[in-house]
Amino acid sequence: MFQYKNNELYLEDVCINDIVKKYESPCYIYSKKMIEDNINKLKEVFEDINIVFAFAAKVEGNLSILKILSDNGFGCDIVSVGELKRYMKVGGDTSKVMFSGVSKSEYEIEFAINHNIHMFNIESIPEAKRINSIAKSLGKNVKCAIRVNPDVESSTIDKITTGKRGNKFGISVDAIKENIDLLKGLENIRIEALAMHIGSQILKAEPFYEAIKVMSELKEHLTNIGFNIDTIDLGGGIGIQYDKSKDAFDFDTYKQKVIPLLKSMDVKFILEPGRFITGNASALIMKIEYIKKEWDKTFLLTNAGMNDYIRVAMYDAYNDILPIIKHDGQMIVDIVGPICESSDYFAKDRMISTVTEGDFLVLLDAGGYGASMSSNYNTRELIEQILVDGDSHRLIRKKQSFDSIIENELSCL
Amino acid sequence: MFQYKNNELYLEDVCINDIVKKYESPCYIYSKKMIEDNINKLKEVFEDINIVFAFAAKVEGNLSILKILSDNGFGCDIVSVGELKRYMKVGGDTSKVMFSGVSKSEYEIEFAINHNIHMFNIESIPEAKRINSIAKSLGKNVKCAIRVNPDVESSTIDKITTGKRGNKFGISVDAIKENIDLLKGLENIRIEALAMHIGSQILKAEPFYEAIKVMSELKEHLTNIGFNIDTIDLGGGIGIQYDKSKDAFDFDTYKQKVIPLLKSMDVKFILEPGRFITGNASALIMKIEYIKKEWDKTFLLTNAGMNDYIRVAMYDAYNDILPIIKHDGQMIVDIVGPICESSDYFAKDRMISTVTEGDFLVLLDAGGYGASMSSNYNTRELIEQILVDGDSHRLIRKKQSFDSIIENELSCL
Repeated sequence: MFQYKNNELYLEDVCINDIVKKYESPCYIYSKKMIEDNINKLKEVFEDINIVFAFAAKVEGNLSILKILSDNGFGCDIVSVGELKRYMKVGGDTSKVMFSGVSKSEYEIEFAINHNIHMFNIESIPEAKRINSIAKSLGKNVKCAIRVNPDVESSTIDKITTGKRGNKFGISVDAIKENIDLLKGLENIRIEALAMHIGSQILKAEPFYEAIKVMSELKEHLTNIGFNIDTIDLGGGIGIQYDKSKDAFDFDTYKQKVIPLLKSMDVKFILEPGRFITGNASALIMKIEYIKKEWDKTFLLTNAGMNDYIRVAMYDAYNDILPIIKHDGQMIVDIVGPICESSDYFAKDRMISTVTEGDFLVLLDAGGYGASMSSNYNTRELIEQILVDGDSHRLIRKKQSFDSIIENELSCL
Repeated sequence: MFQYKNNELYLEDVCINDIVKKYESPCYIYSKKMIEDNINKLKEVFEDINIVFAFAAKVEGNLSILKILSDNGFGCDIVSVGELKRYMKVGGDTSKVMFSGVSKSEYEIEFAINHNIHMFNIESIPEAKRINSIAKSLGKNVKCAIRVNPDVESSTIDKITTGKRGNKFGISVDAIKENIDLLKGLENIRIEALAMHIGSQILKAEPFYEAIKVMSELKEHLTNIGFNIDTIDLGGGIGIQYDKSKDAFDFDTYKQKVIPLLKSMDVKFILEPGRFITGNASALIMKIEYIKKEWDKTFLLTNAGMNDYIRVAMYDAYNDILPIIKHDGQMIVDIVGPICESSDYFAKDRMISTVTEGDFLVLLDAGGYGASMSSNYNTRELIEQILVDGDSHRLIRKKQSFDSIIENELSCL
């Protein structure tokens, strides 16, 4: 959806140059059409499967974005009560909410039970006991999935792999089997599902296939000993193509290997996509404040920083970056932000079309863990978010005010 | 100031167990006495030097903390107008404010000039031109330092080294010399100072010595060609002792080598300490929600996450972690948070005194880049901050509300 027309960058039918005239940079911009295209792509891949899609709200929690997902029938994968409250604010159907996360508090569990979420993904035996105990005190009986740690390699970076032996997520198959009697004895929870989530930004289908086979075998085992497992939560993890010169997610293999495996299993499925839905549907727009030539380098000094988009500083992530007006010629630059850390950069030794001071850049594929991870570091306000729909655009988050940053401190001064 | 009395952890004269009963965890706790002790330590080291201390507000910007610094005569090292506004809110003296940062906007420069800050630390030639132009339009003449990149090794981690060839900070000595005539021609700025900042969390004195020698030589050169350099801004960077089994900052060598060098230079100095002032004066208090045994590991699942304190996830930082009540025995644990990322941990394979579910832990030395880098990731509210002073304690930041997180989105829904 991002494309040049007469050397001017457009998102859908909106010229980005009009956006930067109307709104304040830096800002995040989103494409409704791209979100819907991504939704439709998943619906096509899973067309013959009995499946509920639940958007992973941690990836991008903006209310107007959640509203688009909810309007398209998506449930919600939450990891906190805050995310549940977000989804409820947009009228989301709580019966399609899955609650994941290793350290759910008593308050969070009680709130979620009282709002009738679909199920809890239990990440440890002590958590199973706690949910049972709270459900009992509320006179409820709640559906739960065991979040299984299938111990597979997901071929992603260490910081976001989540289904390997030794990390904090899920329960191993051995531990599940050891604790069967204990789990059966918890009368206020119904273990009717298995859940997996092997990592984020995965581009190959095989890790999913391997993990689902583990789930399938475990489901058979549990069924044989009297459990009624009717649901498998496949988690998220489908990656996007940050670097267009490299591979996108391998849907061909997924369709050939994983879909038939799913069809062979007599259960309902849940998928928790996040980055795949919004990742490529958003960009971070920034202004070049200065161009600095120093040593043998050219630095583009932008007005966006790692507080706005931390993935490069945190994960050495790669994002394509385009000027909103394409001039002749090219230059090799470091694109760096205003924050006083060397890690505050967006690209190093990157070839881009020639730009000058005051020009604007667009950092693509910023819709996954972008705005949702932003902070007030260096006392910088959270920035505007804008939604494009065809030839129209509107604000979906106002810029935070300085007064709002300090209000909870000022009242204590 | 953190010490056990009868196996209960105290900060100053306050029992942390009383804190967790009164306030909501996770929370940050600060010691006024430790901040003042750190201030006094610096005053002792620099007792014969004509120096202004300017606190680096990016390290910890809480208004009540800035008030303590301001009350102790500290100026402020700012990197944004937001930080200037913070300092002004506590009645700080703007004539002791230094404005650093590579990408200052026109608005920020104009605001700072209008509020009569002491000086701008200019990080590039284009910035010098912009400040001159804005000063001219305001009919002002402003003091400026050239932020020099002295190209020295600071022996710290790459992400926070800032005075090496090839990074975005400062101007090289060669570039300064090449642009002398241009700088002299800027009639609305007065280049009367040189500034350096070679990095953060430095434990050795030698890098400072090497950098100050570069500054001294450059000052002589500039004086000889007609500049009136009366101020050297030494920046920050003095590290703290995160790991008590390793070295603290080498003040002995600093006193032997650096202090005499400063005395030999006929200028005023500015020092911009940040982490050294508040780093060890704060801790992050968290509750153990669950203890999970899985594979051959024991996980303490806490209610604090990387959104509250990101330094471990981001920089592989080390922090000591203590239980607030010390029991007999020891255990080896991973201490991990509720956030759905493998990088959300505070310690791996760490030996600590035996704890049980519901116990509280204190992550020490959290006062540098702790609360200031925190975020709403996973829709988690910013947490309480509490100041201890002798046997008293009080809230210095209320917990953020969920409504405040979403207010700028809700109004656009």
